[in-house]
Amino acid sequence: MRAITGETRIYGVLADPIYHVKTPEVMHALFARHGVDGVLVPLHVRPDGLRAALDGLRTLENFGGFIATVPHKEPILDLCDALTPEARRTGAVNCVRREPDGRMVGTMLDGIGFLEALRASGLDPRGLHVGLAGAGGAACAVAFALAEAGIAHLTIRNRGVDRAAALAARLAAAFPRLSLGAGRAQPDHDLLINATSLGMRSADAAPFDLAAIHPRQFVADAIMEPEMTSLLAAAQAAGCRIQKGRPMLESQIALMARHMGAL
Amino acid sequence: MRAITGETRIYGVLADPIYHVKTPEVMHALFARHGVDGVLVPLHVRPDGLRAALDGLRTLENFGGFIATVPHKEPILDLCDALTPEARRTGAVNCVRREPDGRMVGTMLDGIGFLEALRASGLDPRGLHVGLAGAGGAACAVAFALAEAGIAHLTIRNRGVDRAAALAARLAAAFPRLSLGAGRAQPDHDLLINATSLGMRSADAAPFDLAAIHPRQFVADAIMEPEMTSLLAAAQAAGCRIQKGRPMLESQIALMARHMGAL
Repeated sequence: MRAITGETRIYGVLADPIYHVKTPEVMHALFARHGVDGVLVPLHVRPDGLRAALDGLRTLENFGGFIATVPHKEPILDLCDALTPEARRTGAVNCVRREPDGRMVGTMLDGIGFLEALRASGLDPRGLHVGLAGAGGAACAVAFALAEAGIAHLTIRNRGVDRAAALAARLAAAFPRLSLGAGRAQPDHDLLINATSLGMRSADAAPFDLAAIHPRQFVADAIMEPEMTSLLAAAQAAGCRIQKGRPMLESQIALMARHMGAL
Repeated sequence: MRAITGETRIYGVLADPIYHVKTPEVMHALFARHGVDGVLVPLHVRPDGLRAALDGLRTLENFGGFIATVPHKEPILDLCDALTPEARRTGAVNCVRREPDGRMVGTMLDGIGFLEALRASGLDPRGLHVGLAGAGGAACAVAFALAEAGIAHLTIRNRGVDRAAALAARLAAAFPRLSLGAGRAQPDHDLLINATSLGMRSADAAPFDLAAIHPRQFVADAIMEPEMTSLLAAAQAAGCRIQKGRPMLESQIALMARHMGAL
């Protein structure tokens, strides 16, 4: 990558844990293609340090903004000074621009990133029956993007049922014609999506019943590391088409760079 | 330089302005030679943002520490949780280590860095008469290091005479046998040192009377950018041996990396 000098602009990615983030490499490839004098560094922030971290980042005059990931996507919402409609609607933020005066403007690009990657794989979500694992920031973004893209039915499965119900209620208010369900994925689901963090560690339980997956289902995972989760491996073994997390990131990295003013 | 991943450790350099800093390039060359998976980024912090910036950096679990330069070397002293004897003695800090619990430990390496560079140029300061411009953090560090190295006399010239007098008083207390003066450099000075920021901008006044410089004097400048200040250019034209700011940085960069736990 390009040498860092006193004129290089700084960007960050906030996560906890941090070791698994892939955004520096993907963003630096984009910066290199566009001749951007910028660097994106991993910033390991624990939940109880988030407010002080943000207040510190506000003071950095050469800081353009940051990407937020697990577990910060939702708590950061209340710490931003302004939000885009996507962030407000999904109740989560995955990219924040620092304005020259230190104000922080949050947006949420997971949904559009996921949709673009899906379409690039040749899958049009219109009319599909979808099973979604998770009800956190990424899951909300994906759910709203899918609803807007015209899916017919969405079943939400989440360990915390209150959270799943809250997401379903918000979806129902915004998309009255969308059919909604809760609980396990069903055999008639065309598309299964993991938007939980289950699968980041090898000891994790599977987000879906792996034995029930059948080859007419398309299976997508939002997890970036490992690239091939146990869910995706099982789906591939069952003959399903699969979608890894990385293309979802790649399709939104340029949108993130644009939001942070780097492009 | 090496690719930045989620496992890369982060270091910073805090300055205002920031465009002129050379530490990222020098530190990255050192990291490359030692196989260190680290990156040092420029962080542009204004004086009124210093406290919030430090509190933010405390929260970054993968942040190893930072180099402090103009105008932060003295204000940072009071924001550190612990200080080395060099920092306490000179009343300034130019390198801070972040401990795993977020505590900040400040040290001052300008003095030893300057001395090492001087000796590498073949000049032993023992017994010399020295004219020093400046009474800030870098000037203090250089003055104490020179006094410890056995110079015979030091004349301090500073726009703020109170500050110069305060530095002289502290030197007198620590080195009772050192001869001290205030005001302009004299013809019998063997070594002239600029430790002010005069010379960073082309419109700056010279820190010494350039017309009075003569070829038996050794002239050193702590300024890194531009590499050849108007003071150094005049000294070279007068036939003096000169010392640029960069070797002073290079000789202390390994000490800084060690203080921050990178080596």
